[in-house]
Amino acid sequence: MSMDDGKKVVYINKDKLIDYCCSIFTGAGMVKEEAVIVADSLVHADLAGMESHGVIRVPVYVKRIENKGTFAQSTLEIIKESDTTALIDGHNGMGQIISGKAMDLCIRKAEKQGVAFVGVRGSNHFGMASYYSEMALKHGMIGMVFTSPAALLMAPTGGIKPILDNNPFSFAIPSGEELPVVLDMATSVVSRGKIGVAAKKGEKIPKEWAMTIDGYETEDPAAAFNGILLPVGGYKGYGLTVIVGILSAVLTGGSILSTDIKDFYTDVSEKQNIGHLFGAVKIDRFIDLNTFKKHMDEMIREIKNCKKAPNVEEILLPGEREFKNAAKYEVTGIPVPIQVYQDLDKLGQRLNIGFLRAVVL
Amino acid sequence: MSMDDGKKVVYINKDKLIDYCCSIFTGAGMVKEEAVIVADSLVHADLAGMESHGVIRVPVYVKRIENKGTFAQSTLEIIKESDTTALIDGHNGMGQIISGKAMDLCIRKAEKQGVAFVGVRGSNHFGMASYYSEMALKHGMIGMVFTSPAALLMAPTGGIKPILDNNPFSFAIPSGEELPVVLDMATSVVSRGKIGVAAKKGEKIPKEWAMTIDGYETEDPAAAFNGILLPVGGYKGYGLTVIVGILSAVLTGGSILSTDIKDFYTDVSEKQNIGHLFGAVKIDRFIDLNTFKKHMDEMIREIKNCKKAPNVEEILLPGEREFKNAAKYEVTGIPVPIQVYQDLDKLGQRLNIGFLRAVVL
Repeated sequence: MSMDDGKKVVYINKDKLIDYCCSIFTGAGMVKEEAVIVADSLVHADLAGMESHGVIRVPVYVKRIENKGTFAQSTLEIIKESDTTALIDGHNGMGQIISGKAMDLCIRKAEKQGVAFVGVRGSNHFGMASYYSEMALKHGMIGMVFTSPAALLMAPTGGIKPILDNNPFSFAIPSGEELPVVLDMATSVVSRGKIGVAAKKGEKIPKEWAMTIDGYETEDPAAAFNGILLPVGGYKGYGLTVIVGILSAVLTGGSILSTDIKDFYTDVSEKQNIGHLFGAVKIDRFIDLNTFKKHMDEMIREIKNCKKAPNVEEILLPGEREFKNAAKYEVTGIPVPIQVYQDLDKLGQRLNIGFLRAVVL
Repeated sequence: MSMDDGKKVVYINKDKLIDYCCSIFTGAGMVKEEAVIVADSLVHADLAGMESHGVIRVPVYVKRIENKGTFAQSTLEIIKESDTTALIDGHNGMGQIISGKAMDLCIRKAEKQGVAFVGVRGSNHFGMASYYSEMALKHGMIGMVFTSPAALLMAPTGGIKPILDNNPFSFAIPSGEELPVVLDMATSVVSRGKIGVAAKKGEKIPKEWAMTIDGYETEDPAAAFNGILLPVGGYKGYGLTVIVGILSAVLTGGSILSTDIKDFYTDVSEKQNIGHLFGAVKIDRFIDLNTFKKHMDEMIREIKNCKKAPNVEEILLPGEREFKNAAKYEVTGIPVPIQVYQDLDKLGQRLNIGFLRAVVL
């Protein structure tokens, strides 16, 4: 056991963590080939340092499966298809399985046609959006992912009721010698999780992060946590979230209206009907791939060499911190907060797959 | 002459304003068929209430043409083409002409193939991005526009030198009985123009808008105007601007590095080599268009009916204010600030096309 950023953590080897989570998911009824993908996607987030999208979610995934809110078996149905497009119904299977197959189909179509979009409905939480956009990188493509409301966290500008989500989206773009550029962002200034952390520490938060549930300014993290997240850039972030919601849910037939949106954590026996949109653009249809990569490297280097503010050690490109965290944690093991570790340990015991502590200690 | 928001303005009939600007552009060497398109795009921005992208730009357009920074004749060359993609070199012609033709080509390809992207290099300022994304609406398509650096206004997060632009982008999405949803945003919290207005009025600005050229916090609009714009949501807006820059410039061969970027206003004899990317997605490849429109209307109505903050009269969707301004100004005439009116008047006199005042008074 050790300390990481002041939190008590256990460092766990990546492969062991994937194996253990995979066993949990098979214990909960998934087939092994699919369980390993879901486990890998969650551990991928922990490797990137995005703990909120990592193995911390394993217990609620299992809870949703056990309560039939999410089905352990994924039976994809292609509703509509052309050379450049497809619409898939995930029939309430695991988000990662549906999304991996959808992005794979999208890439195969873009390989032939240069450009493709694949929409999905009837899906569930899929982990980090960049897990799928990054699949395009090795094919010399730009990958895009848009995902739709799964919780009621934000209000439209001028509104004071949370009827929108901070819908995440991602763009992944290959480079040459430098790291790829990967944007993966939600449309709120910060996540609800970050406000929760401030609440636990009893720290005041900037009033740009959230408002109270009644629409008042607040620096109180508890009021903010139970309040309404504020969008990036005010009406601009509100606009972005509407667009991402339309692309991923209205275009696909996913849940759109606040009355249709079931909460991931609390409505565990209800189908969420999450929609996603995956896109891929083959770079050499526009410009020679090597030229593109060379120009990417030049751009990246110019940005990294920008004059720095005092106390700034390094300027990072989108996604760079996550790639560097992953490289570090591959070596050191992944820092898993003690509470998350204990929850997994307990879950493993209940599902008769043995203790996590037996694996890591 | 009248007052609008405290500014002295002249109300000018839309068609008369287009005709007059068209005459100015033909006087500067453009052919009539193209001059009318450029004039229409600028007046379109004024109609929308986006004065900064409107006829206020006519004098600098003419100055750039006269100094050969932009060519009056647009000779497009298709460098690369497939059923779903194209790359066009605009050979430094007028941005509006190149962009209109590029988006038109993109829509024709998406009509057949469901999805298309058309990239452009060698272009110039094209007015409002939504002028082109909105072209997709009547074809039952979602339109997308991304455009690339044309000025050095922002720094990467952690940096204190303006080496990036607040690259705008737009998504336009059709609806049924409600107005279409049109997002058209730059990646900075506010435009430099808005800071300029505060400077003229001598008003303090929020410190979230910009920093000084040396990277310090500021509420002084003069220091901010000559400083560095701040991105929406901090590192998120920085990430967005990098992605929009890559899609529009690295993918197309437009200017990327800060050393290659020529300023629209000051480098009037230098080619800017602006890149754009236009995209179109045919909705009925995914979902029946009427169902889509019905769901759009439902979503729009839910948002508009959200509980309002005190003093908020109406909740608006992205683009709604602009559509409503246009409807109003079609009737009242377009409020043109007196200074802009006088500059156009003077320019018309110099180009021997007569006085604007003769047209409107």
